[in-house]
Amino acid sequence: MKIQAVKGTRDFYPPQMAVRNYIVDGWKKASLRNGFEEYDGPVFEYLKMYQIKSGDEIASQLFSFTDRGGRDMAIRPEITPTLARMVNQQINALRRPIKWFSVPRLCRAERPQKGRLREFFQWNVDIIDVEDVLADAEVIFTAVDYLRSTGLTSGDIVVRISSRRMLAALLKSAGLAIDQLDGVYAVLDKKAKLPDEAFEAMLKERIGDDAVRHRVGELMAAETIDDVRNAAHLDEEGDAAISDLRRVFDLLSLMGVGDYISFDIGVVRGLAYYTGIVFEIYDRAATLRAVCGGGRYDNLLRDFGGPPVTATGFGMGDAVLEILLREKGMLKDEMLSTRQIDYYVAIVSDEFVNRAVELAFEMRRTGVCAEFSYKSAGLKKQMKQAQMLNARYAVIVGEELAENRLTVKNMETGQQQLVTVDEFIGSVGGKGGR
Amino acid sequence: MKIQAVKGTRDFYPPQMAVRNYIVDGWKKASLRNGFEEYDGPVFEYLKMYQIKSGDEIASQLFSFTDRGGRDMAIRPEITPTLARMVNQQINALRRPIKWFSVPRLCRAERPQKGRLREFFQWNVDIIDVEDVLADAEVIFTAVDYLRSTGLTSGDIVVRISSRRMLAALLKSAGLAIDQLDGVYAVLDKKAKLPDEAFEAMLKERIGDDAVRHRVGELMAAETIDDVRNAAHLDEEGDAAISDLRRVFDLLSLMGVGDYISFDIGVVRGLAYYTGIVFEIYDRAATLRAVCGGGRYDNLLRDFGGPPVTATGFGMGDAVLEILLREKGMLKDEMLSTRQIDYYVAIVSDEFVNRAVELAFEMRRTGVCAEFSYKSAGLKKQMKQAQMLNARYAVIVGEELAENRLTVKNMETGQQQLVTVDEFIGSVGGKGGR
Repeated sequence: MKIQAVKGTRDFYPPQMAVRNYIVDGWKKASLRNGFEEYDGPVFEYLKMYQIKSGDEIASQLFSFTDRGGRDMAIRPEITPTLARMVNQQINALRRPIKWFSVPRLCRAERPQKGRLREFFQWNVDIIDVEDVLADAEVIFTAVDYLRSTGLTSGDIVVRISSRRMLAALLKSAGLAIDQLDGVYAVLDKKAKLPDEAFEAMLKERIGDDAVRHRVGELMAAETIDDVRNAAHLDEEGDAAISDLRRVFDLLSLMGVGDYISFDIGVVRGLAYYTGIVFEIYDRAATLRAVCGGGRYDNLLRDFGGPPVTATGFGMGDAVLEILLREKGMLKDEMLSTRQIDYYVAIVSDEFVNRAVELAFEMRRTGVCAEFSYKSAGLKKQMKQAQMLNARYAVIVGEELAENRLTVKNMETGQQQLVTVDEFIGSVGGKGGR
Repeated sequence: MKIQAVKGTRDFYPPQMAVRNYIVDGWKKASLRNGFEEYDGPVFEYLKMYQIKSGDEIASQLFSFTDRGGRDMAIRPEITPTLARMVNQQINALRRPIKWFSVPRLCRAERPQKGRLREFFQWNVDIIDVEDVLADAEVIFTAVDYLRSTGLTSGDIVVRISSRRMLAALLKSAGLAIDQLDGVYAVLDKKAKLPDEAFEAMLKERIGDDAVRHRVGELMAAETIDDVRNAAHLDEEGDAAISDLRRVFDLLSLMGVGDYISFDIGVVRGLAYYTGIVFEIYDRAATLRAVCGGGRYDNLLRDFGGPPVTATGFGMGDAVLEILLREKGMLKDEMLSTRQIDYYVAIVSDEFVNRAVELAFEMRRTGVCAEFSYKSAGLKKQMKQAQMLNARYAVIVGEELAENRLTVKNMETGQQQLVTVDEFIGSVGGKGGR
């Protein structure tokens, strides 16, 4: 019976696995050098946990199931709710500020399309309990620090930054009521993805008053922070938001990544839970979805039953990132090897097979990778296999074994050397090793 | 609203994550030095795929759900079916023999108990298309190679080895029909876990004939391979199975792990799909469940619609392993650090905060980990924090900055040095680095 994989999932054959490992290892290294500790949660949780953060409609966007006790569960579509749950559970025992990262595998019941899969990996970086926007700048730096490490430059990518807090003040100045804001954020967030007409229609649903809607349109045309300041008379909250936003730009310049950032009032983030700085990272040509998005969410821990502790962070998925890296020539399959054999043990005839096995496994026990042929084969065929496996050296076991000697061949230079078995074994630990 | 984690799942706070990384990294290193390449599949697949290998009853042991198209899916309870599917799909393009490993996260709808969780990690190692039992010996070696690398000795653990093929011949010699075998394997596999009476009752259900059942009991009392040979007159198939089994013991001795292995006719493995060598690894005192189990399964790829290609491999879960490592003193929380800060940048007063941020991030951009205080704090408090974070050096930014100088303190020795900023930055790349 032939079975297929589910559409929107991926099979990681060794070459694809090497790509995934390359991406995940880069994420982990960038996290560690920026002082974050790794955590993870379960791959499934109670469904209601996701509904607290994202509303009931999230249920149609995730894979849910019922356990034998009749409880509703879901495969995690994101890890932030888990983070909030875990931090709340141990809030008094954890050293603060909390700087954590994770690389969860996430699943969403979406229609698969370019850069959007039903399961993917997402790098999550969060700082909890730092009120100062220094933390926002630091998580943005961390995302850029990783992207730079892959070879991407400020000519390839841009971090578009805005402030949800500033936007709230701005929308209030235009005449919107507080309870209209969440609905309007969700629409504004879709502007770039929708045809103008569809966007206008959706916005009209949320803002019935033509004058207010027109005013919102004018305000959202601001290109600089100064434009924002000149366009509206903001309240104290709005002024504070603007000075925080300016400080983020100053800090990121100080951190040495000023050329990667720009202000963009159109970066809104759809979810209701953001409260301050928000940002998204795009390819400069803006032909792909955002490669990364995040911001400040100061109320989530409290919404999850914990104390009012502030938080900021981001998520970066592997799917769009891989497309971007390939487009920019920063990721080529031939860059990545799936294995590196140190020694290939070849035999001149079958009588030496036991000695070859003994040697190969003696080498492995010292930590180097040794291979051999599983089938009887001529020496020429074995040497070809050694080459195919990318072995660094071939060890040839033959008649010289009677005098306790082996031939060692450097597969790159072709140089051969006759050495005693003891010399050889003694030298192996140092030569290989990973 | 307070939310709990689902019972039988685990939260990996940084200390638990460090344990998981320690185990998984060890698995990966042992795989690579033994010449295996990493692969992975999707975290959910069509439910029917699992039923092909393990029968319909598996549905109650896994988490299944229906997608919006009405298709039955399941979170993977094991990865071998995925392996068979993936190999079949690319069988003509893959270099053979195929030596692959994976560290999948698996979920099972079990009642949580010691060493058995609803989600866990399992190391899977498989060799495909090597008929010779050299492959069986190699996967057993690989499991032992990993366990040895953790510090476990042959006094701590034992690999119990038998042969399903030999057992089939033995049971046939006792008078069992071929179609009785799968049912009898499932019962014999439970012997050690059941009270004698319950075991006898179950066996009686499968083998109604008292004389045959008695004979099976006698045969299963064999303590050595010679006992088996002496107790029954086997057919050709049985003789071949015994000589394969002897060869596995010889090969493992040749490979240098002879002291870890012993023959055990009681190792049966419950699943129908095993066809040859089978094995399980236990703690010597046998107080825990098996830490590892596997064997040869030559028919699975064909059962999945592929060509008749042979296979052998094993799975090792992280839950029992962690208990074993802790019991034997091979795993202590204090062995593992969740992060290592290279430099802590401290400031003598708030006027230097920008310069400290600039310095810290300049260091991070060179690949070393630098931290600083997020809040105004006295120098003493900052140095205490540097200590708490396990920083190797503290950099103190103060008045000397006017002369372009910094104080660098070695946190271990307490030695302080005044250096120029340029000297310091120049030296950083080499000192840290991971």
